[in-house]
Amino acid sequence: MTDTVISSATREVVIGFERPFVVIGERINPTGRKLLAAEMAAGDYSRVKSDALAQVEAGAHMLDVNAGIPLADEPRILAESIQLVQSLTDVPLSIDSSIVAALEAGLAVYKGKALLNSVTGEEERLETVLPLVKKYGAAVIAISNDETGISEDPDVRYEVAKKIVHRAMDHGIPASDVVVDPLVMPVGALNDAGRAVFRLIRRLREELKVNTCCGASNFSFGLPNRHGLNQAFLAMLIGAGMTSAITNPLHLEEMTGVMGADVAMGHDPNCMRWIQRFREPVAPGAEGEGPRGRRESRRRRG
Amino acid sequence: MTDTVISSATREVVIGFERPFVVIGERINPTGRKLLAAEMAAGDYSRVKSDALAQVEAGAHMLDVNAGIPLADEPRILAESIQLVQSLTDVPLSIDSSIVAALEAGLAVYKGKALLNSVTGEEERLETVLPLVKKYGAAVIAISNDETGISEDPDVRYEVAKKIVHRAMDHGIPASDVVVDPLVMPVGALNDAGRAVFRLIRRLREELKVNTCCGASNFSFGLPNRHGLNQAFLAMLIGAGMTSAITNPLHLEEMTGVMGADVAMGHDPNCMRWIQRFREPVAPGAEGEGPRGRRESRRRRG
Repeated sequence: MTDTVISSATREVVIGFERPFVVIGERINPTGRKLLAAEMAAGDYSRVKSDALAQVEAGAHMLDVNAGIPLADEPRILAESIQLVQSLTDVPLSIDSSIVAALEAGLAVYKGKALLNSVTGEEERLETVLPLVKKYGAAVIAISNDETGISEDPDVRYEVAKKIVHRAMDHGIPASDVVVDPLVMPVGALNDAGRAVFRLIRRLREELKVNTCCGASNFSFGLPNRHGLNQAFLAMLIGAGMTSAITNPLHLEEMTGVMGADVAMGHDPNCMRWIQRFREPVAPGAEGEGPRGRRESRRRRG
Repeated sequence: MTDTVISSATREVVIGFERPFVVIGERINPTGRKLLAAEMAAGDYSRVKSDALAQVEAGAHMLDVNAGIPLADEPRILAESIQLVQSLTDVPLSIDSSIVAALEAGLAVYKGKALLNSVTGEEERLETVLPLVKKYGAAVIAISNDETGISEDPDVRYEVAKKIVHRAMDHGIPASDVVVDPLVMPVGALNDAGRAVFRLIRRLREELKVNTCCGASNFSFGLPNRHGLNQAFLAMLIGAGMTSAITNPLHLEEMTGVMGADVAMGHDPNCMRWIQRFREPVAPGAEGEGPRGRRESRRRRG
């Protein structure tokens, strides 16, 4: 049983084997969002603010903050975004950049114990990022690829993850502070993508005993009804032992999959969170405890 | 790897470890449906007909047929219902009754190899149902309870299942023709219901090497948003190794969970069934391959 504690100045979130699944909101990321990128580059953080608040309201337990804008001063923008988000909400953050200087700028202003996103198995990345993780007492997401790229073989990805965890320990970072991203492939391109990642998650949990995190939506790339597929896939990832994901909490379908899986894993005692989220008002004169309103009419149509 | 072959006069369905999940439509069942019960008792099978056709249209691979009406001539009604359904569709049937004479009447008129629903671990039931299974060359659903009732302990339920499988073999029925129902409990009453059944399914598959079937919707009894919870739970059951379920194919949420799980298990080559089911028309002038229409607008609202 492994717990990874992440914190803000005033709140702790624990990613763990016997804990509710941790949803890390993915929206504060200018990649593929031209308007947000232009605004952030111009020092306008209004959308960062609204995205932060909306995701927490929708049930995100943590927020990922990324400021990857080509030709912009990423370290400054990332640090400013983190300071802003921490002034708005007390959920812990994941500091997300491919640029080491930006990761350090984010860590320098962060209040609490951050989740650094990310280190890979590439030698140069290991030896620049891990010292930062140690210096700031952070946790880190370990992506299971290296100089040779991303292997389609989950057992090769397992070996890369193991190398990163062992290297982290060499740097004085406990294995429990390394959260492994097993890398989800698009199933439209690779028919075995689902089973490969389920197998890898089980090995990471049972053999390497680490927590796991992934960007689940890559799975449905190129397919119709992506939210429906993501929903089923997220529930199955949780069933296989995945303990956190970077995803969009504003999508009710994905959140239903996550919350339903928490119920099925016994991680929602008395189904209280499920009931609070989905409880529907009882119509005047209605009898019994069955679902009412929208759902009832939908069932009748069935 | 275990395959259970069920057939009608002209079509075979295989329930198996490396096969797409088999959905057995549950609608032809007067339990809790007063109107249907009254009609069937009066010899009016119009709703049996429309339910059969609608379920096959919605994607059911098999249909369950039950005629359990208090004080009615169940053997005759069940046999007539089976003959009618077999005249309308070529999907194989599961013959469902708690009355042995009705099971035999159904088997006597059934064309093909039926799935008999069901035998339990109760001594009297074992010794009356299994000879019928053998006589007609059918397959059978084995429910893992016995004279002592339904144990909350999945390991006790495993032992009951094992007893039934071994007894079937004593009667000359191959283990591959026994499909075990591990019994799904309501999670609102029993917090560990999900994990207990996942563990039991894995044992049934890996140790007893049998196929499995369940009535999944019992899981969400008494909770709001039952379809959303059933959807996540069904996907997780399939991830744990479940190979068939008796459920309502008219509910899109449940079917999305099943079809998404088939994709994630690698049982929908090239995602062809998923794409055919959920493909949306491309609007004139629309670019790229992303989802369109209703879904696109839903995402924008997010």
